[in-house]
Amino acid sequence: MTDHPPASNLPVPARAEAARRAARKLAALDTEQRATLLRDLADALELPDSRVAIAQANAKDIEEARAAQARGELSAALAARLGLGPTKLRGLADGLRQLAAMPELLGSVQLRRELDEQLVLERVACPLGVLGIVFEARPDAVPQITGLALKSGNAVLLKGGSESLRSNRALVTIIHGVLTEHGLDPACVALLEDRAAFAELLQCHRDVDLIVARGSGPFVKHVMDSTKIPVLGHSEGLCHVYLHADADPQRAASIAVDGKCTYPAACNAVETLLWHPDAAEATRESLQALSDMGVELRVDAATRALIGDAIEAKDARPRDWSTEYSDLILSVAQVPDLDAALAHIDTYGSRHTEAIVCADGSPAAERFLAAIDAACVFVNASTRFADGYRFGLGAEIGIATGKIHSRGPVGVEGLLSYRWLLRGEGQVASDYGPGKKAFSHRDL
Amino acid sequence: MTDHPPASNLPVPARAEAARRAARKLAALDTEQRATLLRDLADALELPDSRVAIAQANAKDIEEARAAQARGELSAALAARLGLGPTKLRGLADGLRQLAAMPELLGSVQLRRELDEQLVLERVACPLGVLGIVFEARPDAVPQITGLALKSGNAVLLKGGSESLRSNRALVTIIHGVLTEHGLDPACVALLEDRAAFAELLQCHRDVDLIVARGSGPFVKHVMDSTKIPVLGHSEGLCHVYLHADADPQRAASIAVDGKCTYPAACNAVETLLWHPDAAEATRESLQALSDMGVELRVDAATRALIGDAIEAKDARPRDWSTEYSDLILSVAQVPDLDAALAHIDTYGSRHTEAIVCADGSPAAERFLAAIDAACVFVNASTRFADGYRFGLGAEIGIATGKIHSRGPVGVEGLLSYRWLLRGEGQVASDYGPGKKAFSHRDL
Repeated sequence: MTDHPPASNLPVPARAEAARRAARKLAALDTEQRATLLRDLADALELPDSRVAIAQANAKDIEEARAAQARGELSAALAARLGLGPTKLRGLADGLRQLAAMPELLGSVQLRRELDEQLVLERVACPLGVLGIVFEARPDAVPQITGLALKSGNAVLLKGGSESLRSNRALVTIIHGVLTEHGLDPACVALLEDRAAFAELLQCHRDVDLIVARGSGPFVKHVMDSTKIPVLGHSEGLCHVYLHADADPQRAASIAVDGKCTYPAACNAVETLLWHPDAAEATRESLQALSDMGVELRVDAATRALIGDAIEAKDARPRDWSTEYSDLILSVAQVPDLDAALAHIDTYGSRHTEAIVCADGSPAAERFLAAIDAACVFVNASTRFADGYRFGLGAEIGIATGKIHSRGPVGVEGLLSYRWLLRGEGQVASDYGPGKKAFSHRDL
Repeated sequence: MTDHPPASNLPVPARAEAARRAARKLAALDTEQRATLLRDLADALELPDSRVAIAQANAKDIEEARAAQARGELSAALAARLGLGPTKLRGLADGLRQLAAMPELLGSVQLRRELDEQLVLERVACPLGVLGIVFEARPDAVPQITGLALKSGNAVLLKGGSESLRSNRALVTIIHGVLTEHGLDPACVALLEDRAAFAELLQCHRDVDLIVARGSGPFVKHVMDSTKIPVLGHSEGLCHVYLHADADPQRAASIAVDGKCTYPAACNAVETLLWHPDAAEATRESLQALSDMGVELRVDAATRALIGDAIEAKDARPRDWSTEYSDLILSVAQVPDLDAALAHIDTYGSRHTEAIVCADGSPAAERFLAAIDAACVFVNASTRFADGYRFGLGAEIGIATGKIHSRGPVGVEGLLSYRWLLRGEGQVASDYGPGKKAFSHRDL
């Protein structure tokens, strides 16, 4: 055990620097030590004392959130995400155990190449260093993010929603206990308690290597505009489902309902349904099913002509095509053909997740896959599969829609960088070149 | 053949947009088409007409540069890099042919995973889209960068030094001819002719995916501060060589001289030599060799005590430790031990390339490799090996010292992103979860 003074009352830049220093020891853990750390953290979350502490803190957060909701200061959706009961806690602990069991990427040799005799180059995965992560009211994110950070050898400074502050504190206290037991500095996992602290963190570009921003579109955009630190995230999740001419009606309805209704606030939820003129039956069936699920439809003239008064719908306004509703609302438009669907998606899509519904083996499928420039492109599958857990990445720290570094759901791999290590016996570059020694460049 | 109107007189945002559109066809070339394109470009550079056109343009550039140098408006180092004679041209053509022969990374499947029966996920390499690249007076960069862009399926907007404008124009004219012969839009490779145009490009974050900045530290920093587009590059190359206690004198001198003298303006050149008190002989021999090569030494008190009047040297000032000379100047300091060397490098290094000279099998080697946080960490090899060609990456578009996306020498791989493609038969996410269907997550 090591004795570490509490860092939480230090100024933010000092905490970021402390995190950077603390990260070195974390990065140097071997595979077994790292796995033990994660398993011990999972166990610690399920200890009776922990359960009580978390339940008490969470109950107070929920009580305040309900009051705030009653005053109209907090959305029902946000309040609903606050709960952290025994089932969720169990799931979080299991998630940490799965992460512990996953192959160790940190330190893995990505490439080993002989440049010449006794001159061997390696590219080795290493942590980014220090992560700054901001997320909205969901205390589950604290152990999930911490798990990914520890697995990837990164220190992390967390800023959660103020609505879950007590729950987050309870969780971080448990995490600090486990870190200390393992002889690690608790500065590895720091909780920032207010917006001002996070704003300060955005200026710490010397010590913070990556910001992960999860939250509403405008908020993420604000973060991206407020820092020189690279930001991983997405300011929009405007996803489409396109029903091609040969789409099966039952399949179309099922994918549309899953994409819109299972979690409308999710970034991988569908916001716009596009349909080919020959997919009238599939469209009618999908819209009926969506309407039955309570989805408000906002339709163009062709869709109105299709459904008449049989299905309740509003007229779409131009801004609907570029609106991420994050709610049980869906805009619907007919497109003359696949090319028009691609063009619509190119114009309005946020490069997150796009799906086509078509017949198995339809040539439209491969054309759609080839043409769409987005993090995730799906054929005959719900957009809701765009998720680190569902992709088998173990967990997900966020979904990135930029093309630099990671794209789509980001797991452990997206939190790693690499270093080039070269081991020689005194070789110098000027000995190589035309008429001199030649490189062998032989991969080992 | 396709007829494309010249884009060079369009406003910069329109050219960036044209590049984005043109890039689609470029990205869609198959492996053989792409290799043929690169080989045809190599051949075109060596055609007699091309040689004459390039030689004439280059002669004018050099003539003007010499006049500017005489007026003190251009550094000798910059002027020296302008020449593009037959040998260089041959080397450039060969480089393009090697690139053509390299394995195709674009479109490669990086991961194929069954999520469930008939639900298969792939992660497939794709181009970033549009690159904006700025570099100083070296017309060689035009075919090199173009080759990397074409190989990776990216369009590119190039801004070279004004000193090589005529040479760059001649090269781009040849490139446009080859693109047109292949039915590609010449907008794929655009030349920006002045700083104002490049400043405009930095604002085109909707159409430009990555900026690569090559040039002086302050210039690269200026670029990084002037755009929302991710910038790949390094604003400093402050590299160290540390002579450990057991360093062989001959090996030390050889690595120090190669690191400092073969190309002092290169970013991987050594700026500071650190030495262990027990490496006195290796240090003396290194400093004598460096002095013989005309290197100005700036030394601390301990080094002065070591060399006395035997070797000419100035006293180092505090700012020397953080100065990238890019010239035949070297600062020299004694450090009490390896830890102090690591601390000095952590404080002053630019996270580019760091090297230790020690005995074969010295425990210091692995400690150095583990502890240094830099793109390249070398044992008993010159820092000058930090180079895409020497690493066997085929070519190099630049060296990155950030940790996000690529790090160190960046070749084709660093110009790629990826997309997640999922092919199903109607699966929806709500069918999976506790008590429902389970994911198989089986890598194929």
